[in-house]
Amino acid sequence: MIDAQAKLIERALQALGPKAVITDATEIEPWVTDWRGRVRGAAPAMLAPGSTEEVAEIVRLAQEHRVPLVPQGGNTGMAAGATPPADGSALLLSLRQMNRIRSMSAENRMAVAEAGVVLATLHDAANEVGMRFPLTLGARGSCTIGGLTSTNAGGTQVLKFGTMRALVAGVEAVLPDGSIHNGLSDLKKDNRGYSLDQLLIGAEGTLGVVTAVALRLVPAIASRAVAWVGLESPTRALDLLRHLEARTSSVEGFELIPQDCLDLVLKHVRGTRPPLSGRHNWHVLIEATTAAFDTDIGGEIERLLGDALEQRTIEDAAMAASEAQAEAFWKIRETISEAERAEGQTLAHDISVAVADMPAFLGEAAAKVQQAFPGAVASGFGHLGDGNIHFHVRAGDRAAPDWYEREGGEITRFVDDLVTAAGGSISAEHGIGQLKRDELARLAPTRVFHTPILGMIKKPAAKLPAMPPKVFMT
Amino acid sequence: MIDAQAKLIERALQALGPKAVITDATEIEPWVTDWRGRVRGAAPAMLAPGSTEEVAEIVRLAQEHRVPLVPQGGNTGMAAGATPPADGSALLLSLRQMNRIRSMSAENRMAVAEAGVVLATLHDAANEVGMRFPLTLGARGSCTIGGLTSTNAGGTQVLKFGTMRALVAGVEAVLPDGSIHNGLSDLKKDNRGYSLDQLLIGAEGTLGVVTAVALRLVPAIASRAVAWVGLESPTRALDLLRHLEARTSSVEGFELIPQDCLDLVLKHVRGTRPPLSGRHNWHVLIEATTAAFDTDIGGEIERLLGDALEQRTIEDAAMAASEAQAEAFWKIRETISEAERAEGQTLAHDISVAVADMPAFLGEAAAKVQQAFPGAVASGFGHLGDGNIHFHVRAGDRAAPDWYEREGGEITRFVDDLVTAAGGSISAEHGIGQLKRDELARLAPTRVFHTPILGMIKKPAAKLPAMPPKVFMT
Repeated sequence: MIDAQAKLIERALQALGPKAVITDATEIEPWVTDWRGRVRGAAPAMLAPGSTEEVAEIVRLAQEHRVPLVPQGGNTGMAAGATPPADGSALLLSLRQMNRIRSMSAENRMAVAEAGVVLATLHDAANEVGMRFPLTLGARGSCTIGGLTSTNAGGTQVLKFGTMRALVAGVEAVLPDGSIHNGLSDLKKDNRGYSLDQLLIGAEGTLGVVTAVALRLVPAIASRAVAWVGLESPTRALDLLRHLEARTSSVEGFELIPQDCLDLVLKHVRGTRPPLSGRHNWHVLIEATTAAFDTDIGGEIERLLGDALEQRTIEDAAMAASEAQAEAFWKIRETISEAERAEGQTLAHDISVAVADMPAFLGEAAAKVQQAFPGAVASGFGHLGDGNIHFHVRAGDRAAPDWYEREGGEITRFVDDLVTAAGGSISAEHGIGQLKRDELARLAPTRVFHTPILGMIKKPAAKLPAMPPKVFMT
Repeated sequence: MIDAQAKLIERALQALGPKAVITDATEIEPWVTDWRGRVRGAAPAMLAPGSTEEVAEIVRLAQEHRVPLVPQGGNTGMAAGATPPADGSALLLSLRQMNRIRSMSAENRMAVAEAGVVLATLHDAANEVGMRFPLTLGARGSCTIGGLTSTNAGGTQVLKFGTMRALVAGVEAVLPDGSIHNGLSDLKKDNRGYSLDQLLIGAEGTLGVVTAVALRLVPAIASRAVAWVGLESPTRALDLLRHLEARTSSVEGFELIPQDCLDLVLKHVRGTRPPLSGRHNWHVLIEATTAAFDTDIGGEIERLLGDALEQRTIEDAAMAASEAQAEAFWKIRETISEAERAEGQTLAHDISVAVADMPAFLGEAAAKVQQAFPGAVASGFGHLGDGNIHFHVRAGDRAAPDWYEREGGEITRFVDDLVTAAGGSISAEHGIGQLKRDELARLAPTRVFHTPILGMIKKPAAKLPAMPPKVFMT
């Protein structure tokens, strides 16, 4: 531990007490490695403030002693943005103690949650007042509101409700000088001055530490229909989506899954069963919901899928006959990554291209990757309606145990080049974190960095091309 | 004309030719006064570039000669943000020549429109490919995409689709140093780096000149239902909205109108007729739409209003029986301001409070205003479901001709104090412009200005409390 850190820790102990300053290595240990186990960091202490004022105090101390902080919520990020550097130069700033839901109003359709509130907890609290916070994703039992905001998280209902950016009405954050930006508001509309809140969303903690967020709510779901569809190609899947959207506004989840990913889940994840009797090249998991309690949403979707079957847009379909079956369908989607890891080494790429371009891109990119890297298996699943696919490359049967380390970088650069050539993004929803910093520096269009506004924000003078610093440098 | 301006104009003539440099006073005249005739400005020249590169050239010249520019679109702003100062120190920068729709894709649900494209033109172009740009407002025949973006405009369909902020996927803008920020994108999701586009939205041209915008589209309307409802109070109106929202997702417009505003329209606007036979304290104009061509939207709304009538939530209702009648209903809503002006002097306040607080606020604020300023008539109409009401104070019969000049400031400060005390915003959707600068400086919470991030953006060093400069200072 360097001297400045020791001084900061001593001062923090005095100011905040021992509960907020964790130096026990075994307590810190679970939080210094990203959850996928890819990036191992180190931190001599984890600071766990219980209030915005305590966060501000810590940031001021860090500023004074010039010690970097790495803000962290549930540690479920996909880009290791919440993992401290391995040299132990930074301290962890855990927001998990800040876990109060400050307000929850069905009348105003607005909630204010502190950064450490777990997404599932917010879901439950909203549900208790007949409302709903619609954003959700696989990590909902661990991920926190602060991290979701700082990474502009997406998930499976973006199609209808947008990313966090669309659902955040205001942000409270501690800025680099230790001052508190209070953008919390229960106003639906407010055009006074610049939207600093929007700038903080997706800034991955590099402009400030998000401490609380005002969130928009929507009416609770009265009923839902979940369906599993087998079809020939991503092109047909997009046809199906447009077919549905022209006839109902109820579709909010539309997840594309290839047969090979389904096979892996059935092989590795206990208790999963194939939703359809036959095999199909591609599958789609559909979720349709309504807040209207007298709508026969199941009947509506079944009828529309029947038409699609008749028009040969799809090959087969099954409606979930119960909540348990609906959950079983979703479990398949949400355990794909787990199954891939069980199968072997996997490289994940969270990419987007224009929606209409995705079906062709998927096929061409997979073929090119497999040609360039014999033995590797390229496959994509996810949010087709948003043009956002998780394009994964698996090691294949004959790969060496160090395939990931030896070939990973080259394959990822290959994929990222394809995405960039297609006008796409190498980070559709997972952010930059540590894992994508080098690729961003290599490929980012000038619009991402080379602008005077950004230059003004990024004092001290940024070296360009630059990346969001991986840690919140005080 | 000062020397620096003359030099700039000469240089602009050389660089862009005479078509882009207008110095004929009669041609400039219609654009130096805000459309409501409240703020009269002056400008020795109007620059009218035809491309982003030309805008950049003009900004570089203005920078070099230290001449302020005032960007202007359709000149339909409500806060005189596009009106040059009266001393003639600034030049007008008209974006109206940049009126190309660069792309329109039904497949990607995305359009790219230049700043000078008129909103109605975009509506028509989207409709031609079976899509829709859902934001609309009374000035749609004149207002431009650049101005709508720079002011984060709202309008009558915000309830379902949000303000411009929710509909803009990317912004191209010329920044103060003359460089071009290219945030245009046909990606639905992209989490690379900071969202400078979101910072430019609603910045009212003070951070850059918006030159083109990527816009999200939604499926075209297959059918719509428009209804006029009479009811007792804003509280009942909010009850009705919640009643509808629990049973259908089709409501996208929900405009509150008091009887006195309806009376003024019927008195002053030719060809208008009362939608209901009886009188009611308050009225609501409802628009429900569906993109599904087989939905009986009219029948649905009629049934739901029938239930509301039975439950005495509402007193009477009429469904528009034809498109002509639907337009006639909307005409009443959209000519309220015109009717008020015809009646006499009117002070407009574009305010928001929390949605659930608005019914009580409206009643209390109107009573307090009328008590404090005897003879004045306070009334509110607009977007109840967004907590955003246009709270207008009319001079009343016995007011002096100089009532607006003499009492206007005091009444507005009185209203703004009430709004601020209720935790509301003195600009829900109209922006700050010139008209609200002093009030913003007087009342803005520290969150609007006193933040280090903002300090970094607002170089040269801002005097705090400061306001967005009324002109884009180079």
